[in-house]
Amino acid sequence: MGGIITLTTDFGTRDPYVGAMKGVILGIDPDARLVDISHDVPCQDVAAGAFVLSGAYRYFPPGTVHVAVVDPGVGTARRGIVVETQTWLFVGPDNGLFTPVYSAEDVGRIVEIRNPEAMLPEVSSTFHGRDVFAPTAAHLCAGLPLESVGPPVDDPVRLDLWEEGREPGRMTGRIVHVDRFGNGITALTRDRIEGATGGRTFRVSVGGQTFGRVSQTYGDAAQGEPLVLFGSRGTLELSVNGGNAAELMGFGRGDEVVVAWEEGER
Amino acid sequence: MGGIITLTTDFGTRDPYVGAMKGVILGIDPDARLVDISHDVPCQDVAAGAFVLSGAYRYFPPGTVHVAVVDPGVGTARRGIVVETQTWLFVGPDNGLFTPVYSAEDVGRIVEIRNPEAMLPEVSSTFHGRDVFAPTAAHLCAGLPLESVGPPVDDPVRLDLWEEGREPGRMTGRIVHVDRFGNGITALTRDRIEGATGGRTFRVSVGGQTFGRVSQTYGDAAQGEPLVLFGSRGTLELSVNGGNAAELMGFGRGDEVVVAWEEGER
Amino acid sequence: MGGIITLTTDFGTRDPYVGAMKGVILGIDPDARLVDISHDVPCQDVAAGAFVLSGAYRYFPPGTVHVAVVDPGVGTARRGIVVETQTWLFVGPDNGLFTPVYSAEDVGRIVEIRNPEAMLPEVSSTFHGRDVFAPTAAHLCAGLPLESVGPPVDDPVRLDLWEEGREPGRMTGRIVHVDRFGNGITALTRDRIEGATGGRTFRVSVGGQTFGRVSQTYGDAAQGEPLVLFGSRGTLELSVNGGNAAELMGFGRGDEVVVAWEEGER
Repeated sequence: MGGIITLTTDFGTRDPYVGAMKGVILGIDPDARLVDISHDVPCQDVAAGAFVLSGAYRYFPPGTVHVAVVDPGVGTARRGIVVETQTWLFVGPDNGLFTPVYSAEDVGRIVEIRNPEAMLPEVSSTFHGRDVFAPTAAHLCAGLPLESVGPPVDDPVRLDLWEEGREPGRMTGRIVHVDRFGNGITALTRDRIEGATGGRTFRVSVGGQTFGRVSQTYGDAAQGEPLVLFGSRGTLELSVNGGNAAELMGFGRGDEVVVAWEEGER
Repeated sequence: MGGIITLTTDFGTRDPYVGAMKGVILGIDPDARLVDISHDVPCQDVAAGAFVLSGAYRYFPPGTVHVAVVDPGVGTARRGIVVETQTWLFVGPDNGLFTPVYSAEDVGRIVEIRNPEAMLPEVSSTFHGRDVFAPTAAHLCAGLPLESVGPPVDDPVRLDLWEEGREPGRMTGRIVHVDRFGNGITALTRDRIEGATGGRTFRVSVGGQTFGRVSQTYGDAAQGEPLVLFGSRGTLELSVNGGNAAELMGFGRGDEVVVAWEEGER
Repeated sequence: MGGIITLTTDFGTRDPYVGAMKGVILGIDPDARLVDISHDVPCQDVAAGAFVLSGAYRYFPPGTVHVAVVDPGVGTARRGIVVETQTWLFVGPDNGLFTPVYSAEDVGRIVEIRNPEAMLPEVSSTFHGRDVFAPTAAHLCAGLPLESVGPPVDDPVRLDLWEEGREPGRMTGRIVHVDRFGNGITALTRDRIEGATGGRTFRVSVGGQTFGRVSQTYGDAAQGEPLVLFGSRGTLELSVNGGNAAELMGFGRGDEVVVAWEEGER
């Protein structure tokens, strides 16, 4: 069986763009096995693409190559990169799309895609998904060594949205995604919060609202009441039992979420 | 080549949920071949999911594992099950999603998913598609014996919508789906109707309207006129030649359809 | 590894139609590898289906079987056909869907699908995607010789939209697609235009508007200004830097585009 290559893009499914990428990959590595993650990332929304990728990549087997293309800067000087972790490779534009990978994984080498042999013979200025990222992924999947793709990169672009703040008694993050049910999802994992608090009781605040405890399930709050819990991603989420938290509490993507505790207590 | 696993869900294609399920499956059985049936089942609409699955599952080769997740009761006491027929396995919540299978197939064993080794190590309360159904399907596809999944179930949940009534001179069913063209589709097959009527002439009624014959094609009725025919699924359908039958005739999902004949005649 | 079969349809992703086609293919050729190009072609819009297919097919490896089903004439006397080129096979209705293939490729044999053994045992009048085109594609992929599918066709249906006009000093085409950004895409390739003009300077006109030069990138025009360039497909496109060309210039699909030059000059 060939290697697995996943695809995450904002190309939609009405145009031939995704089909062209798939054809290019199979033209280079006919044994590759293609898996669609999503092609419905909102147009040119790099942060949304980062979020979708972050919710799926870790479940794939070692050796999977994840291609992600949400690329408002195509044709400009922005770099194309390959990111290596212990387990997977990521291929796409260097615009912050891989921020969640930098946050959560042990990142190995990162290289810029510069070798013309990793690309199609002709590279357009408007469609690097087909001309650069798909062929690079296919060549890597077929065995091209990472170091031959291009020179190392040591300053990949990161989205502020996924930054985490730490000071005594306090940890901050942001709402990285509001899902279609209105839940506000952060990148603050249970592990990281428990590591910081050392098991102490903590409060969670967003906007003017503070929660004194983390619920186990939606049902822990009365119907229509807001709550915080660790969602199926293992990260802190703001929800309303049977309602839309974003509307009810008035938050949006990028809003700060504060976890606070008393350093003295234990 | 690995086994085939199909996916039918209401997760949509904007969020990482489907990608996570695919990753989990390939993580357990890297040789599995994934086939999307639909991820656009209307949200939490179990009857619509049952209909979509019913129109596709029978075309797949023997041994195919069909995973279906439309699961409004996730996190409650509703069971997860595996349904075995002569030809395929079905994996999903026990909420009626497999009713068309119970109606049309020779069902063998049904088991509840209880063995933790058929699941991910950590099972969330909100995403059993990823944590229970995808891993169970992958383990079955890779050879796990059905009996080791869990204890037998003898009272699976059925949707009333697919029930069929029989009495002398009369057979009843319901409109199980209204498609995007406004056609009203029943689960009454040509075989079953012919078996019941013994080849006698029959009338079809829905609401106040009665049809004295079954048309061969849409063109058998004048433009804008209603008709009944056996559609491409082999079941009785209500249509309008060049129009929207649901609007014109005023029916909806769940409405009763009556097939009637004179028992004496032959 | 089995052969590759791509799918392009207007069936959408909410109904079981695409799943049924996939099941039929895998039932006949369990080793086939399925690739979705698009199922979101606008309903019954043959020209749009032709465009989507035209943007993807050429990237797939030799031997790929491309199935396309946008089939408003299903159930009428319109033929089903298989088109052979040096590199690929195309399977679908003979209604113009393959016009771009006839324009761009060296077409070999074209045959009508008539052999019942290339179809499902029962062929409905409404769903040839499942009953005719999917099984024919699967049988071809599994090795059925083309000549056994049916008799030769020498007059396949072509869409006028893709016709190209040539006279001294002048070449004409049409806008074959307006994409979601409002760009007007023609089928006039750079190669063909350069072959006709012999490298002479040319003007491009659409509606009342004439462009004296071809831009290299969107940025060659001022913000909000219209331009012509060769897009990522290698064909002449009408665009507006940072705007919607179709709205601003008032063109639509089917409008004539004229390339003109002075025959005497060189």
